Amino acid sequence: MKTLFPPGIIGVIGGGQLGLMLIYRSKKLGFRFAVLDAADAPAKALADFFIEGSLKDAAALGKLAGACDVMTYEIEHINTDALDDLYSRGHPMYPSPTVLRTIQDKLSQKELFVKKGLPTAPFFAEEDPATADFSSKQFPLVQKTRKGGYDGKGVRVLQSAADSPMPAPSLFEDMVSIDKELAVMVARGRSGELAVFPVTEMAFNPEHNICDTVIAPARVDEKTAAAARELSVSVVQALDGVGIFGVELFLDTQGRVLLNEVAPRPHNSGHYTMEACVTCQFEQHVRALAGLPLGDTTLLRPAVMLNLLGQPGSAGSPLVQGYEEAVNVPGLSPHLYGKIDCRPFRKMGHFTVTAATLEDALEKAEYARTVLKIGGAG
Amino acid sequence: MKTLFPPGIIGVIGGGQLGLMLIYRSKKLGFRFAVLDAADAPAKALADFFIEGSLKDAAALGKLAGACDVMTYEIEHINTDALDDLYSRGHPMYPSPTVLRTIQDKLSQKELFVKKGLPTAPFFAEEDPATADFSSKQFPLVQKTRKGGYDGKGVRVLQSAADSPMPAPSLFEDMVSIDKELAVMVARGRSGELAVFPVTEMAFNPEHNICDTVIAPARVDEKTAAAARELSVSVVQALDGVGIFGVELFLDTQGRVLLNEVAPRPHNSGHYTMEACVTCQFEQHVRALAGLPLGDTTLLRPAVMLNLLGQPGSAGSPLVQGYEEAVNVPGLSPHLYGKIDCRPFRKMGHFTVTAATLEDALEKAEYARTVLKIGGAG
Repeated sequence: MKTLFPPGIIGVIGGGQLGLMLIYRSKKLGFRFAVLDAADAPAKALADFFIEGSLKDAAALGKLAGACDVMTYEIEHINTDALDDLYSRGHPMYPSPTVLRTIQDKLSQKELFVKKGLPTAPFFAEEDPATADFSSKQFPLVQKTRKGGYDGKGVRVLQSAADSPMPAPSLFEDMVSIDKELAVMVARGRSGELAVFPVTEMAFNPEHNICDTVIAPARVDEKTAAAARELSVSVVQALDGVGIFGVELFLDTQGRVLLNEVAPRPHNSGHYTMEACVTCQFEQHVRALAGLPLGDTTLLRPAVMLNLLGQPGSAGSPLVQGYEEAVNVPGLSPHLYGKIDCRPFRKMGHFTVTAATLEDALEKAEYARTVLKIGGAG
Repeated sequence: MKTLFPPGIIGVIGGGQLGLMLIYRSKKLGFRFAVLDAADAPAKALADFFIEGSLKDAAALGKLAGACDVMTYEIEHINTDALDDLYSRGHPMYPSPTVLRTIQDKLSQKELFVKKGLPTAPFFAEEDPATADFSSKQFPLVQKTRKGGYDGKGVRVLQSAADSPMPAPSLFEDMVSIDKELAVMVARGRSGELAVFPVTEMAFNPEHNICDTVIAPARVDEKTAAAARELSVSVVQALDGVGIFGVELFLDTQGRVLLNEVAPRPHNSGHYTMEACVTCQFEQHVRALAGLPLGDTTLLRPAVMLNLLGQPGSAGSPLVQGYEEAVNVPGLSPHLYGKIDCRPFRKMGHFTVTAATLEDALEKAEYARTVLKIGGAG
């Protein structure tokens, strides 16, 4: 397709927090946005055109395609057959359905890493883990279901052959001895031009295995950061991806950088770019899919992002506690997603603290974490 | 009123570019937005609730009041009597209608400056300039109609008694020998707390008298900047204003800082804060009117903002030229307002360039000015 100029229409499959932030951060570019999702989707309020429907429904996806100049998606769990069909009939879509299909299946994703010689944890696959024989395997193993995983779902650590695997088709990875989990946002344009954001450090809450803290820049040496950037670029090139990609990496205790997995969309580890970088991940994605030049990814200040997850036991309309105290922290920027129901560990929002030093940002973010909570009205 | 917590509803009178940017920059705070304006208003696409109507219509204003928790306005030309009535019946509104009334009338604004001892150009008022006797006056004089001025309209320079004044009730100011025009955004919270943004420098296009360039920080010495900040704070305090205020100042050739006029709302001279400051003017305004703590106004990088005005002779749907070249400039952030009609000198958008040095930002902005144009499809 030719370059999209304002006021062209961008179709977004999925109106969750990523679709919401995509719109509020790139509306300034002058495009209009059509969104497909359920009626209570957060991005509905900001969409120029809203199509109510399921992301699995071919007819709804076709309706969105008909309403826009170029399509993208904020989530991987879509009807890929329908996307293939629309794409083959000439509807521009970035990243392409082929990229999505490769990434949707964690086995094909890993196979691509191996084929391209990109370092990743050793693994094997089992179509039917319930009946497979693990007696000759080395434990611990990390089981990942091939499809449908999200926010810690679809992942299980097996300590020994006595632990039952999940019954779905899966891959099983050697457990990496992790020093840090890193992430890099990479944008790639239609002609292959690249823009790489700073390397970040992700920390996961052990209780629910959801990333809850992102630190930018990562506290690693420049050699490690360069390896992380290089590997992240390589995988996006290997995918022939166009748009923004979140690349998750392991830094192991021997100092090696390994590929974990790739998200073909804006990513939690890139939220900090809204406050900390010259161009944010959402604007960058829109620039890429519109065929415009990519923006400057310079980090302006160190940043710490914390997810705001629904409190344990919460239900009903969200109730924010400690908001006033939190927004009183200098350099704290809250993002509340406007979800209608609060559920335990659901991503209800996040906040980013920027400061002159990373130490200061960390200290302020940890203070804010203690005061800001989202529960439910019951 | 008590502090407004998300998802409380903020009512915005006027859905032009300021309302649009207010929403896309503060949606992250978790509030919902109700907007009153004509059906083609740019902010309509982002409003949670949209009321179609005139800003002069008391019934429409009443409907907006009924649909929100707290009201504000993005423009001064509203039905103030209707606002007074709503306010007296207990509808929270920031800034108050009293502030708006004082500012709407340039004479009462000037009289406040004088009453509070704030330096401003000497002036006199005439109810009927067409019949007034100017023979004893010192020329040149700057005539400003008391009401209704906007973007250079309602201002005329009279070089001698032979020049005809505009016929409306007006004030006439001694023409200041101007070195620079400066502007300062000041936010004031409900308890009187203050947050002051950096002093900026405004340049006006002589062809249409609309500010077309804002430079942050202003290229003035610290003593001048301190005087500008102090005077700006004083006038917002004198008004007892709550919310964000754009204070326009003259730096005269003798180094004195004089008050020109005040806008009780986000202001063109504060657009640069979106890219260049930790908290932007729009988020700051929402924080103030919601009763939340004000944000950090630290300047992260020097910035230059240029308005994108409709080309001379333009009409019809806007056509953007040079967009690709412009967004290819590192650190350039465009804001296109989505207006449906392009008209000569109409504010169709703006862009801000941030860079490591002001010189670099200026150079890049001047380059972008030469390539980026908005005309009409005719």
